[in-house]
Amino acid sequence: MRNVCVIAGGQCQWGVRQATERDLFQEAGKACFEDNKIITNKDIDGLIVGSAFTERCSFQTHLAPLVAEHLGIKPKNICARVELLCATGSTGIIMAAALIKSGEADVVMVIGGEKLYTPQRWEVNYTALAASDHDFDTGMGLGLPPPAFAAVAKQHMKLYGTTEEQLAMVSIKNRRNGLNNSKGQYKEEITLEVAMNARAIVRPLKLFDCCPVTDGAAAIILAAEEKAKYLTDKPLVYFRGSAQASLHNMSANMPSWTTWEALKIAAQQAYNKARVTPQDIDVAQTHDCFTISEIIEYEDLGFCQKGEGGWFIEEGKSDFGGQVPVNTDGGLLSSGHPFGATGIRQGIEIIRQLRGDAVRQVEGARIGLTHNLSGLMAAHTVLIYGRDLE
Amino acid sequence: MRNVCVIAGGQCQWGVRQATERDLFQEAGKACFEDNKIITNKDIDGLIVGSAFTERCSFQTHLAPLVAEHLGIKPKNICARVELLCATGSTGIIMAAALIKSGEADVVMVIGGEKLYTPQRWEVNYTALAASDHDFDTGMGLGLPPPAFAAVAKQHMKLYGTTEEQLAMVSIKNRRNGLNNSKGQYKEEITLEVAMNARAIVRPLKLFDCCPVTDGAAAIILAAEEKAKYLTDKPLVYFRGSAQASLHNMSANMPSWTTWEALKIAAQQAYNKARVTPQDIDVAQTHDCFTISEIIEYEDLGFCQKGEGGWFIEEGKSDFGGQVPVNTDGGLLSSGHPFGATGIRQGIEIIRQLRGDAVRQVEGARIGLTHNLSGLMAAHTVLIYGRDLE
Repeated sequence: MRNVCVIAGGQCQWGVRQATERDLFQEAGKACFEDNKIITNKDIDGLIVGSAFTERCSFQTHLAPLVAEHLGIKPKNICARVELLCATGSTGIIMAAALIKSGEADVVMVIGGEKLYTPQRWEVNYTALAASDHDFDTGMGLGLPPPAFAAVAKQHMKLYGTTEEQLAMVSIKNRRNGLNNSKGQYKEEITLEVAMNARAIVRPLKLFDCCPVTDGAAAIILAAEEKAKYLTDKPLVYFRGSAQASLHNMSANMPSWTTWEALKIAAQQAYNKARVTPQDIDVAQTHDCFTISEIIEYEDLGFCQKGEGGWFIEEGKSDFGGQVPVNTDGGLLSSGHPFGATGIRQGIEIIRQLRGDAVRQVEGARIGLTHNLSGLMAAHTVLIYGRDLE
Repeated sequence: MRNVCVIAGGQCQWGVRQATERDLFQEAGKACFEDNKIITNKDIDGLIVGSAFTERCSFQTHLAPLVAEHLGIKPKNICARVELLCATGSTGIIMAAALIKSGEADVVMVIGGEKLYTPQRWEVNYTALAASDHDFDTGMGLGLPPPAFAAVAKQHMKLYGTTEEQLAMVSIKNRRNGLNNSKGQYKEEITLEVAMNARAIVRPLKLFDCCPVTDGAAAIILAAEEKAKYLTDKPLVYFRGSAQASLHNMSANMPSWTTWEALKIAAQQAYNKARVTPQDIDVAQTHDCFTISEIIEYEDLGFCQKGEGGWFIEEGKSDFGGQVPVNTDGGLLSSGHPFGATGIRQGIEIIRQLRGDAVRQVEGARIGLTHNLSGLMAAHTVLIYGRDLE
């Protein structure tokens, strides 16, 4: 079996952008090529494009050939789009790695993004209603994420004593981590007082407990090891393994609101494939769409025991210098969350951490993990990268 | 590298259906399990869902976990959607095969479909405008396919002497091939006189030169060879290789209207990976969205020389008993074309031909090919299956 390496990554400026979807994709592609001056668009034989809301927010589908054309890429082995809502970007990376491992392609760019702020500002919220099971959940008020995640938070607080202050600490940490991330949506620290007194979205979730709506795109390039050696002058980063699990879609079939069984399955499958344990992870980017999400992810990724997530953030275990620094570039809470790009941004931050050239560096990081979730905690995607294969 | 086999396939009734999208997916999944009584939903560790128009025509995205739930599948390794417009179904099969080959999954269902007839009948045509590059092509009247393919036909007629009668012969053949396909949209033969006198869509294309709008879904199951041996009692069919190429998206960048360069590249890559030549293909399902498409595909797949496509159909070379029977179950022209399902339907017909249990059997078929195109002839997907690996 061929080994797969990640050899470049870059993103455009994220935030509220006066630009079209195709502008964002072009800027991200350009930034990716700027990260690696050896590789050119002619080296790329595969393109995977990720976007969740392109049909409705940009009225443009068949996006893969369009993006290929605008980046001057002429893929001869694969040119397609993938979608798994909030986990779209990491899904693209899984597909690209499999295509390379299997010999179907040698050098694949994965690029994802969204233009969510439209002149019709209601478009993104309206479209989000299509993401839940609209026959069964949207009618219950679970069409948009905040009510569902507020229910998760309430339940976690009741079962395990997690506090609103602990939720706030996640956003304080991630805002601090994002301070020097020049491409992220926010570069402002917040204090506990500001977070606790912010307006409610759906109680107990307040403004800073929720990631924002974001325009943005990001790109990453994967290659077979034998090609990668000649296509980069930076340290090689290996794709070690991944998994993506789903046990339910509609809320009525969810096994548990506070233990995300599909995440536990995906994590275990990914750890097995990468031949590592949770204790081996040096740095992680997890899906902090809401502060409560990151707390549950500490638990279900195996960084701590069930119910200890609140304590994990409070004790600084997920901060620099702690057990496993999480969301070192600011995560969704500070960088923003253009669905198709998020998993790719996470991958970029992990490869920088493993190469040793991150903006905020975790010293000596050798193994990194990314996690995305989509829907009502329905599908979970876990990817593991390493500086070595063993 | 692991070998990949196809071990089951089935589709729901295609046509104008009084059913929701999720009904169609459930029926197709059920039909697939009925084709193979040994395999159950518990054996499946990956699900790839294909749909091009789900966001707009069914107002439902995040379709993969939804379909998994409705089929009782709990994927622990992959659960995602792919999209490449008209080539969505075959793109899903490529991804599934790569995931299995690479060891990321063992048994993957690929299921695709569309519910295109909505109470708002304009929805499908309006949505189709999002498929072309809407900044550059839709404004030129090339947003919907017929004008573009009419231009292709005119040019091919001018350059190579292809006739309207030869176009008609493609639909006559495919309607005849579809006569006994109980799940297809049409089961009616047409005559040359009927075809030639049908109303114009965009001249020279008339009614029977164009595939219809179709509701439908189809499903197929792929597995690693070592699993496949225990999961079917029918002859094994191997996935031998595939490729997908794209050289342009907007019409202004198209290298040629009548020679589909991206198809030639995809075909050559797929032949190389499968270690076969065009002369080895015993049966093919090609993308006959319009009659002119099938004629050009004979040429660019290498079944005949450039310009000889009209002669190829007229001489019966693509009919039963000819050089390579094409669209043996009726193709898009008779079966219909629910985008996400078409490539899967083609795969089902090929595995039946190779197993020897097709409704209209090509005697002794050992190697089969499927082809899809998407957009303004922009992206082309070629898959090759075989009864053996050599």
